[in-house]
Amino acid sequence: MIYNDHDTIVAPATPMGGALCIIRVSGEDAIAICDKIFRGRKRLLDAKAASILYGNIQDGDEIIDDVLVSLFRAPHSYTGENAIELSAHGSRYTVERIIALITKHGARLAEAGEFTRRAFLSGRMDLSQAEAVADIIAADSRASHAIASTQMRGAYSDELQNLRNKLLNITSLLELELDFSEEDVEFADRSQLRQLLELTQQRVESLARSFALGNALKEGIQVAIAGRPNVGKSTLLNRLAGEDRAMVSDIAGTTRDTVEVTTNIAGVIYRFIDTAGLHETNDKLEQMGIERTTEALRKARIILWLSDDATSSFETDLIGYTPTAEQQVYRIITKCDIAREADCVPTPTDYPTLRLSARTGEGMDSLLVALQSFADVNDAYRGEVIVSNHRHYEALCQADEALSTALKALHDGIPTDLVSEDIRLAIHHLGTITGEITSEDILKNIFSHFCIGK
Amino acid sequence: MIYNDHDTIVAPATPMGGALCIIRVSGEDAIAICDKIFRGRKRLLDAKAASILYGNIQDGDEIIDDVLVSLFRAPHSYTGENAIELSAHGSRYTVERIIALITKHGARLAEAGEFTRRAFLSGRMDLSQAEAVADIIAADSRASHAIASTQMRGAYSDELQNLRNKLLNITSLLELELDFSEEDVEFADRSQLRQLLELTQQRVESLARSFALGNALKEGIQVAIAGRPNVGKSTLLNRLAGEDRAMVSDIAGTTRDTVEVTTNIAGVIYRFIDTAGLHETNDKLEQMGIERTTEALRKARIILWLSDDATSSFETDLIGYTPTAEQQVYRIITKCDIAREADCVPTPTDYPTLRLSARTGEGMDSLLVALQSFADVNDAYRGEVIVSNHRHYEALCQADEALSTALKALHDGIPTDLVSEDIRLAIHHLGTITGEITSEDILKNIFSHFCIGK
Repeated sequence: MIYNDHDTIVAPATPMGGALCIIRVSGEDAIAICDKIFRGRKRLLDAKAASILYGNIQDGDEIIDDVLVSLFRAPHSYTGENAIELSAHGSRYTVERIIALITKHGARLAEAGEFTRRAFLSGRMDLSQAEAVADIIAADSRASHAIASTQMRGAYSDELQNLRNKLLNITSLLELELDFSEEDVEFADRSQLRQLLELTQQRVESLARSFALGNALKEGIQVAIAGRPNVGKSTLLNRLAGEDRAMVSDIAGTTRDTVEVTTNIAGVIYRFIDTAGLHETNDKLEQMGIERTTEALRKARIILWLSDDATSSFETDLIGYTPTAEQQVYRIITKCDIAREADCVPTPTDYPTLRLSARTGEGMDSLLVALQSFADVNDAYRGEVIVSNHRHYEALCQADEALSTALKALHDGIPTDLVSEDIRLAIHHLGTITGEITSEDILKNIFSHFCIGK
Repeated sequence: MIYNDHDTIVAPATPMGGALCIIRVSGEDAIAICDKIFRGRKRLLDAKAASILYGNIQDGDEIIDDVLVSLFRAPHSYTGENAIELSAHGSRYTVERIIALITKHGARLAEAGEFTRRAFLSGRMDLSQAEAVADIIAADSRASHAIASTQMRGAYSDELQNLRNKLLNITSLLELELDFSEEDVEFADRSQLRQLLELTQQRVESLARSFALGNALKEGIQVAIAGRPNVGKSTLLNRLAGEDRAMVSDIAGTTRDTVEVTTNIAGVIYRFIDTAGLHETNDKLEQMGIERTTEALRKARIILWLSDDATSSFETDLIGYTPTAEQQVYRIITKCDIAREADCVPTPTDYPTLRLSARTGEGMDSLLVALQSFADVNDAYRGEVIVSNHRHYEALCQADEALSTALKALHDGIPTDLVSEDIRLAIHHLGTITGEITSEDILKNIFSHFCIGK
């Protein structure tokens, strides 16, 4: 692939088949190229920035379409370059003709994400903002939209910039000492420095921790419904599916034994997985089903441990599965509508306990409240920075590690230049998030996941 | 349905799933409503017409999306009303939120075609132009696009206006006589009047005649490939399908015996139908197949009569089928590559004769030239008016009939007021095409076939 960021590029920015289709053109020659095929009351070359012109697109004398042209001049456009957006009739024939005409006059077809890539390269947005553009387009719930929106508007970038500045200040002080090393001075108060570093690290760690929630909100929160056979797991799943019919989709699993239902509860996507009933067995097929259940349990953020026997234990019901520290287990005593009152008094466990009847709906409210308390979306709605991108999470973890090394070095009295090197490594990792430090490979990888025309 | 043309309406004008989505708002309050949810450097209320503004769409403090707003002020917009086009990120979640917000502030969802309906009602275009908008969007070939394009740009409307004006002049003269009827004057020279009427009728007839071509270009030209079994019909079909692979689609017929292939030849869509081999038979199933072949022959505009026997006759090969005056028959002598030279000298018939070998491709060029000569698309490309709409064709036929009656009445010396009535009837029918005379039922019928957002 011969890649040239100075070419003028063209692509449809909306799918075919609607009333309109937007064709985007960007690059130094965008206006000049479109001027050659446009006939209106005014020439595009003479048009004011951010103005709209009505006219025809012509191939010689042949009129291809009448269009509205939105004209932008560098640097005041999405890409920061000269740019044209043609609003044409949404016919595949028309759009293909117009795009062919524009490429004939010197533009080339845009790669996936190339408009946003240019917006990044021209400094219109940083890399984390560019990535948020793709997240915005993919957002399917209020929560995932809110996170992407905060990130796109730059709150996250500001936070990272702030952290990098603090770290740069610290290294500057340390490196100043190096310049005067023969005089054996200490400009920086070591304990103050450590305190500053610790505060910065805490913020990095808290950002990294937010990824657990951010990722869950972006991808949907995995909830495993588990327990012995016939305790009401499928009844609960069906009821949950009914909570918000508009957003429900039944996805038949690859195996007969796992069914997934996706539901939007108060703006958050939950992916409920109905697992196979767990019980000891020697049957080979059943054992395979149980292995899949264990797999689903491992992936879950929330485990709903269902039981119609208030005296059963997690260990027996879930056949030895041990939840991780990140997993939230709820004990759900089912079939309360038909059980005797005495049976509903549960033996104590470590897990919050709810009672419900999926059949009558009794107790469902409490379950929904419990599920919602797990995902505190208010932070997201308030515009707090929540990390939802794997690449960012990795970078934060690496920065965190470098800061730990630096702190340990400070504590151990390791020479200043080595401490400074660790801090510079942390700055480097934070810089990869916003793209201040980046490589062609990283850019290619990020933008290849975009759609054409964005 | 409560229909109010004064409401402000909103709809997405592009499908979901792309980089961008355009949301259209039109109506007196379009700008005021959008102003309530827009935060930019300038208020929409203060913005200049035909300008582009960048800003956020907000629900209270919550930012839904950052958008480009194209602002139009009545009457300089597509609908002739105040209008806004929001260019938002192409996410279903975002678009649904924005549209919900706009309806909350007083707009309602637009009906199919309602924007174009308003463009018609406000006099921005006449009805035939509005219909051409839908044709433009549906156009799948250069020819169908050219016809719709000419119609949309108003050449057709001008022609019809011209014809109506001529007829109005004639009736005015006739009706002036009526006012002076007691004095028994004749203002209009009868023979001149007749000549004028005849000329006008000729143009109406020629427009009506153009429908045969226009409809064929719009829907694709039906070509039946017929003949006795095993004369090379399927071989020819396959070769035709290969002429332009990109545009080929094989549609398996509802019956096993008919296969259709759609091919774009020089900008025109041809629908080739490979019919069952025709031969006398008592087999009931075969007879049914032959009935279907006869049906396909009746529908065809072009019949390719294939035969590998240069001495056979149309009547025997096509078992008594008689082509209509509108149908063009080509006699195709097949298998020329393996036939002896003597066999290739055909017995004379009324039909143009071609020789070819579908197997080797010999003679295919001549066939393509023959097919193209049938559809003279140059008129369409030159911007000549070609009728392609059934409703228009019906109206032209009715106008033609009324003019015939008027001419006969003139000739028979029928009282002037009756002649005038017939001419007024012709004017009426021509007026229904451009919508100068129309009804709510007709409008509903036309615009319900549009897509939402157009």
